[in-house]
Amino acid sequence: MYTLFYAPTPNGHKITLLLEALDVPYRIVPINIQLNDQFLPSFLEVAPNNRMPALIDQENGQSVFESGAILTYLAEKHLAFLPEVGPERYEVLQWLNWQMAGLGPMAGQNHHFNHYAPDQVPYAIKRYTEETTRLYSVLDKQLSEQDYVAGEYSIADMAIYPWVRLHEKQKQDITQFPNIMRYLATMDARADVQASLQKEAEFDWQASLTEQQLQQLLEV
Amino acid sequence: MYTLFYAPTPNGHKITLLLEALDVPYRIVPINIQLNDQFLPSFLEVAPNNRMPALIDQENGQSVFESGAILTYLAEKHLAFLPEVGPERYEVLQWLNWQMAGLGPMAGQNHHFNHYAPDQVPYAIKRYTEETTRLYSVLDKQLSEQDYVAGEYSIADMAIYPWVRLHEKQKQDITQFPNIMRYLATMDARADVQASLQKEAEFDWQASLTEQQLQQLLEV
Repeated sequence: MYTLFYAPTPNGHKITLLLEALDVPYRIVPINIQLNDQFLPSFLEVAPNNRMPALIDQENGQSVFESGAILTYLAEKHLAFLPEVGPERYEVLQWLNWQMAGLGPMAGQNHHFNHYAPDQVPYAIKRYTEETTRLYSVLDKQLSEQDYVAGEYSIADMAIYPWVRLHEKQKQDITQFPNIMRYLATMDARADVQASLQKEAEFDWQASLTEQQLQQLLEV
Repeated sequence: MYTLFYAPTPNGHKITLLLEALDVPYRIVPINIQLNDQFLPSFLEVAPNNRMPALIDQENGQSVFESGAILTYLAEKHLAFLPEVGPERYEVLQWLNWQMAGLGPMAGQNHHFNHYAPDQVPYAIKRYTEETTRLYSVLDKQLSEQDYVAGEYSIADMAIYPWVRLHEKQKQDITQFPNIMRYLATMDARADVQASLQKEAEFDWQASLTEQQLQQLLEV
């Protein structure tokens, strides 16, 4: 059994994609980031950076934060979606890192300046919208000769898909990226992907954890 | 023998830190990013994202891009600076991912808006300077009870140190972070760290590669 500290953001979505693909039991502890659940004192024990997602493996008590590290932990534990050795392993890891260090942070800034910043900042809107376009071009080229980013379906796809499915929010013209369009259709057709989207839809943005509730959850 | 495509930036520095710590033979191919060497057509073969660092392992022809993936590749090949199993492994990987996804991108935007942006953008300067401060606070707390970020000296330190040594550039008051100050002194005292700094100092910012030179280097 796994406990996933989760909100339906792209980084939270990565982990439900993997848990559904692994078909293992897990429970979601909702971290309502709109109501600041991530700042509850006890949450720091599993997430010293005050961010979800975070995971606890109830079998051994291991806790992991940072979505890239959680994907790697689960893939290595279950020997799935990340080859154990050889060139295929590093093909997956380099595209996972590309998402963690490039696509994720830059699309995140894109979201901020296109939607959330209280000021209109034209320089930053242009900077991050254009960098997102550049990253989409790199991905589109990578997908031109294969269905998935690193060959077989892997944790690299689980990291990338939650971000590129938000192309409209990122002010990207997806018709310019035919391989990404095909990729999104391939992903959307998967039953495990649909199950992860269902978890998003079920999230209750009205509810919030108390420190006491969180402490009780952490004791189990 | 390894071939490292390198410029003396924080992300390039990560890899010389590891190669020096491993004490393995390597050659540096300078990628002069001020003169756009990273856009040479042949460089795309090893670095589809047009960024250094990238690495070729001459023993098996494996090429890897993204600094986090390169660190992992070398650590797993040499069974060093990343425990193979257990909680210690994921302690390293979560802090490596924290650097790749948080400290690196955010300090990178900090550098951009504090130093390189042609426009003065007060909103962005404040945003990234304050987020860098927050990340330093997280790191300082993590370092309060141990010498290195994840227990023993690891690839997480090699990812983090090149960024936090640039605290002045990032407009951070390092005296507010006594544990990071001690950490920087610990790192600076290491002979392998000094060797990596020597590689930085030796870089020739006047020279630039031609496409023909790069092709010849890639053939060997």
